[in-house]
Amino acid sequence: MKLRVTIMLKTGVLDPQGAAVRHALGSLGFPGVDDVRQGKVIELDLDETDPAAAEAQAAQMCEKLLANTVIEDYRIERA
Amino acid sequence: MKLRVTIMLKTGVLDPQGAAVRHALGSLGFPGVDDVRQGKVIELDLDETDPAAAEAQAAQMCEKLLANTVIEDYRIERA
Repeated sequence: MKLRVTIMLKTGVLDPQGAAVRHALGSLGFPGVDDVRQGKVIELDLDETDPAAAEAQAAQMCEKLLANTVIEDYRIERA
Repeated sequence: MKLRVTIMLKTGVLDPQGAAVRHALGSLGFPGVDDVRQGKVIELDLDETDPAAAEAQAAQMCEKLLANTVIEDYRIERA
């Protein structure tokens, strides 16, 4: 089954990539941008067909590899 | 208002980052991974309060800066 994992920096953690995008948008003539945060999204296609088991497997993948849980939060959704 | 922009490589475009993640997951003992695609997510906080106008503005941002529309698709959702 397919899952979508979204990984964002935790609130309060400096996001230089987001700040750069915000600055670039300002330069391009988009003035009304209050904040930009950039993260990553990973679409997983797993053999596992049971939704709960697949989500548990994805959570393990996040803890072990995909996310740096010191500074990042992850969210798992069914795609 | 807050919008979430998800940018993924188009289907058929080679995704070396996703392939690397898939390979790493295999090495870490997650065998049942059929496919991995990696993209980016950008959370925008805009001054614009009208949802339709904010979405139109975000679409322009994608076309001009955020996405490479030759190889990437973008999707805009209200966050």
